[in-house]
Amino acid sequence: MPWTSTNRIYAKPSSSGEGTTPVAPQKARAATTAAADSGGRFELSDHGYGKSSVKLLHVHRDGEFHSIREFEVSTELKLSSESAYIVGDNKEVVATDSQKNTVYVLAKKHGIKTPEEFGAVVVNHFLYTYRQVQEAKCHIIEYPWERLQAGGPHNHAFIFSPTATRWCEVSQTRHEAVLVKSGLRGLRVLKTTQSAFVDFVQDEYTTLSDAAERIFSTVVDAEWTYDSMRTADFDNAWLTVKDAILDKFAGPADTGIYSPSVQHTLYQAEKTVLEKVSEVTWIRMTMPNKHYLNIDVSKFPANVTKGDPRHYIYQPIDKPAGLIYAQLRRRPKSHL
Amino acid sequence: MPWTSTNRIYAKPSSSGEGTTPVAPQKARAATTAAADSGGRFELSDHGYGKSSVKLLHVHRDGEFHSIREFEVSTELKLSSESAYIVGDNKEVVATDSQKNTVYVLAKKHGIKTPEEFGAVVVNHFLYTYRQVQEAKCHIIEYPWERLQAGGPHNHAFIFSPTATRWCEVSQTRHEAVLVKSGLRGLRVLKTTQSAFVDFVQDEYTTLSDAAERIFSTVVDAEWTYDSMRTADFDNAWLTVKDAILDKFAGPADTGIYSPSVQHTLYQAEKTVLEKVSEVTWIRMTMPNKHYLNIDVSKFPANVTKGDPRHYIYQPIDKPAGLIYAQLRRRPKSHL
Amino acid sequence: MPWTSTNRIYAKPSSSGEGTTPVAPQKARAATTAAADSGGRFELSDHGYGKSSVKLLHVHRDGEFHSIREFEVSTELKLSSESAYIVGDNKEVVATDSQKNTVYVLAKKHGIKTPEEFGAVVVNHFLYTYRQVQEAKCHIIEYPWERLQAGGPHNHAFIFSPTATRWCEVSQTRHEAVLVKSGLRGLRVLKTTQSAFVDFVQDEYTTLSDAAERIFSTVVDAEWTYDSMRTADFDNAWLTVKDAILDKFAGPADTGIYSPSVQHTLYQAEKTVLEKVSEVTWIRMTMPNKHYLNIDVSKFPANVTKGDPRHYIYQPIDKPAGLIYAQLRRRPKSHL
Amino acid sequence: MPWTSTNRIYAKPSSSGEGTTPVAPQKARAATTAAADSGGRFELSDHGYGKSSVKLLHVHRDGEFHSIREFEVSTELKLSSESAYIVGDNKEVVATDSQKNTVYVLAKKHGIKTPEEFGAVVVNHFLYTYRQVQEAKCHIIEYPWERLQAGGPHNHAFIFSPTATRWCEVSQTRHEAVLVKSGLRGLRVLKTTQSAFVDFVQDEYTTLSDAAERIFSTVVDAEWTYDSMRTADFDNAWLTVKDAILDKFAGPADTGIYSPSVQHTLYQAEKTVLEKVSEVTWIRMTMPNKHYLNIDVSKFPANVTKGDPRHYIYQPIDKPAGLIYAQLRRRPKSHL
Repeated sequence: MPWTSTNRIYAKPSSSGEGTTPVAPQKARAATTAAADSGGRFELSDHGYGKSSVKLLHVHRDGEFHSIREFEVSTELKLSSESAYIVGDNKEVVATDSQKNTVYVLAKKHGIKTPEEFGAVVVNHFLYTYRQVQEAKCHIIEYPWERLQAGGPHNHAFIFSPTATRWCEVSQTRHEAVLVKSGLRGLRVLKTTQSAFVDFVQDEYTTLSDAAERIFSTVVDAEWTYDSMRTADFDNAWLTVKDAILDKFAGPADTGIYSPSVQHTLYQAEKTVLEKVSEVTWIRMTMPNKHYLNIDVSKFPANVTKGDPRHYIYQPIDKPAGLIYAQLRRRPKSHL
Repeated sequence: MPWTSTNRIYAKPSSSGEGTTPVAPQKARAATTAAADSGGRFELSDHGYGKSSVKLLHVHRDGEFHSIREFEVSTELKLSSESAYIVGDNKEVVATDSQKNTVYVLAKKHGIKTPEEFGAVVVNHFLYTYRQVQEAKCHIIEYPWERLQAGGPHNHAFIFSPTATRWCEVSQTRHEAVLVKSGLRGLRVLKTTQSAFVDFVQDEYTTLSDAAERIFSTVVDAEWTYDSMRTADFDNAWLTVKDAILDKFAGPADTGIYSPSVQHTLYQAEKTVLEKVSEVTWIRMTMPNKHYLNIDVSKFPANVTKGDPRHYIYQPIDKPAGLIYAQLRRRPKSHL
Repeated sequence: MPWTSTNRIYAKPSSSGEGTTPVAPQKARAATTAAADSGGRFELSDHGYGKSSVKLLHVHRDGEFHSIREFEVSTELKLSSESAYIVGDNKEVVATDSQKNTVYVLAKKHGIKTPEEFGAVVVNHFLYTYRQVQEAKCHIIEYPWERLQAGGPHNHAFIFSPTATRWCEVSQTRHEAVLVKSGLRGLRVLKTTQSAFVDFVQDEYTTLSDAAERIFSTVVDAEWTYDSMRTADFDNAWLTVKDAILDKFAGPADTGIYSPSVQHTLYQAEKTVLEKVSEVTWIRMTMPNKHYLNIDVSKFPANVTKGDPRHYIYQPIDKPAGLIYAQLRRRPKSHL
Repeated sequence: MPWTSTNRIYAKPSSSGEGTTPVAPQKARAATTAAADSGGRFELSDHGYGKSSVKLLHVHRDGEFHSIREFEVSTELKLSSESAYIVGDNKEVVATDSQKNTVYVLAKKHGIKTPEEFGAVVVNHFLYTYRQVQEAKCHIIEYPWERLQAGGPHNHAFIFSPTATRWCEVSQTRHEAVLVKSGLRGLRVLKTTQSAFVDFVQDEYTTLSDAAERIFSTVVDAEWTYDSMRTADFDNAWLTVKDAILDKFAGPADTGIYSPSVQHTLYQAEKTVLEKVSEVTWIRMTMPNKHYLNIDVSKFPANVTKGDPRHYIYQPIDKPAGLIYAQLRRRPKSHL
């Protein structure tokens, strides 16, 4: 009587089981593809394929001074033909293995100045080389390496400093412009004052009280698009977004900046980006509210808790977290 | 020159540093919100907030026979007012803490029959209770518990069996119908024959040869929507999708089913779902091609490798992976 | 004052900075290794090196009926010479790349019957082949694949079913016997009754009340050793451990089994293993107590919570968790 | 005929199934504990229990200037009594919930100067307060927050900078001294030159060639113990270890430092720590060799690869990795 656990907690109605009888084996390839479309009842409304997570280190060796950038590159093609899906015919298919080769070969040939510019090289290549490609995408994650400081900048040694991860997605449809989205992920910050949350809805589902002082901690994600590839300074834009977030979250070193809500702080950071980086079309940020709860020590006798009154203890909460996002864009001229 | 992002591999142009000088501290709340909109140059194009990952175990105790379902529930509201973002005014804000309370209270009151139906209870509640809520969403992940088998089904003991994870997202905009999307994540399968990939594009970027026989392994994700909440049998639909995937991947126990490409197998599974579950509007699947490479032992002397010829050794590759997806929908009547 | 760890919350005393001045560059290889041991003040008290996470799929093709086992194999050698460490001399070093090759070649030659037996093949090989190897270890994790059932067992299709992961570690020192440790990781279970925790210490640090009824959920890890490789049935032992845990956790399907504490349940499972598997020397289990808290709905008005009294709602807690472990062994004969 | 997957790839001999018949339910508590020890055939050779991952933020508010340290604290007690395990009697058990309370209360009372010193407060407390505690342990992980720099150090804003994680484990057995182990985890570095691996064993299992130049990248873990709590400067020691690793890995900013093997670099870093921090008894480091492979572009036509010769492209490999560790200690005086 061994242990097994075959049944789902929710049982499947036994009648529905009949339908799952496997069809007879299809050994001949021709048989597989015959009458594949079932009389036109269904249609593909989206499709694509490619190679994900092609890992790549680019080293630029300028004499003794070396620079590196490490990436995970994912490519994706949409073919004009649907026959790979519908009848299993691969003759238009650029193998995902060849896509991987292409990423390496293009990196070798052109180097990688910024992930956004390399992404544009990749999508251009696929559209130019293969007529059957209708749309190409390239998603790139950059590993957060920094040059080591050893008295001064080190010639060839680097340290992994993941305070925030940079990524981008570049896409192009045949006969259209290249689209670039850039992103920043995982910028985690905390401040111990200058944050409140008061005057919200109080009703029978509310147990939270007004908090005039609270810990504010969040892990910021941001993404944004550019008006045009041509004028954008991608490295500078990314750093400006990071600075704007830190600036509006933390404020001046001495006094900080007051936050009446995560919503407002998020909005302020987005507005700063649009003000500072003219080539950004819109920006979207997500700021989860990572809660740090006061620990109530009043239930313990005073003698076991009493100490230096400057010590405060909070309980960090992983889940649940608040979840706040907004997207801010330039108002179209016709609105003015 | 304030924020410490100076060590980046890509240096920030020093001229742009000027702009990041923090503004003077804003101690008075009124000051924070004055002139917040900067003369109408920008506008919020999307926003929302809620509580993510509210963990919840529902136990239904029917005498000695207990049933459980465990969930992570995330809620999200879009308010008609933007003032929380723009001027830091929270008076319309239903606190995310209250949203968490609401999830627990609704689960206590109504129980949880299926995640989809509970999601509908949640979004209905928010729209009905708060006039300022324009749209409500509820995302639910179900933990893959199964009832233990100990000779027969156990009355009250369960085992975690994560062969695939179920999730759903339910949303509703005021004055519109409830929308339900269901999903399956992480169904990992492998077959050792009946898979090929031949006759694809060969050019100067190609190093892969035709493979008439290869290992086929993938980790399937699927998502689909329903025509209408009213007629859907959500538990049955989820199990049918899972069965369709296994059926079209593996085929009959003795002979299997031939796969000319991941694309075709994916398409066959989607078609089966649309044929079997009439209330599904469209279905989208992703099937990464998890590669298992032949290991070339020819570079070693025969005496160190020669053994039972029935042993085959492959090298599993985590990254990169192929990436194939498609969405199949019912053809609108007007197309027929 | 070289390395950029200055931003730490805890400042480094500036005086200690002096010592970190980098030594002059050592361009000549000879210079690097001169006087390496600093006059014998220090000694290596442990060392080893190898290749970790060599991924490997073994397919046994017996006509139409195929069997698979997938592993991550890590090897480790301890050389009798310390010169690779102390003077950078590699002439005794079996490259980790060659260790990887060896794993593949041995798998090809011998197949893999059980991970424990394959581990023994690997460590034997290294000790037999290289005189400078003093000790060899092989750690193996097995991926939890199961044969698909499609009416009956499928000839060549498999599904990933990670209810628990199997691993082992095999080691051998020159002139000594092979040692085998086997393990089971991540067996997650939950029961909704037949668990209590009462009559524990109550003092000024205690806020928990006696609980005569509580949810009991844990994620079991277990490891054990064998008296001798020769007589052990490794597959059967692993399954017996898994069954013993489920048996003592869950009990009979109708009534279950009462648990007065995690400690006692853990002990009962260990005792069952030693009773059933005579070749096991000792077994160690860890059972974190994954808490599910009652949600107090009394703070909400009755009308918002009142429903079917058979619905119970709990809050699963990820962190912190209880942490309970014990190791049970056969009492040496001299103790009797 | 639905899909299930009940059987392990390795079948369990059916005969062994008999033994797993669950024993009859034990409803009365007395019954549970009767004859629990099975006639003294087995004995507990190790045991312990506690609370793992108690999350904790300590804020020290010194006027406007705030400091934070965030921790995950795990406690563990070994009781002199085994009756909780053997007969399910909890009367000596200090509940893990009370252990959690104790961590919070002690942090509130004493603050947290360093994790090592707080760990000592915790283990002392348990041994002093409860006679039945034979041994107490406290494991602490520190979250890598840094003070934000905004022109100068910010008064109350912090950024998460996980270049390396600090941890410690403090333990004490009744009537013995406190033992302290400190650790550093996840320091990831890479250099693009000054690394070689040559003159290793070449035989029929070898396919790797000598490399006079290679990328060297590793993710360092280190742990060490102290002679005595009393004289140790824990913050300084941790920073010195980190600096020693960076110093011996990277060398001077202009020329770097030559590495003939991971082994030798690891040894050099350890030796530096023992030379610089007199209170460290021994140090153990692990340096996986994270491989970056040359990409062979010679199989592609020159026109698709030829570009600026300063561009080099490598393929980072996640698995397998080399695995190198060693422990270095001060030679006992008797050896001199």
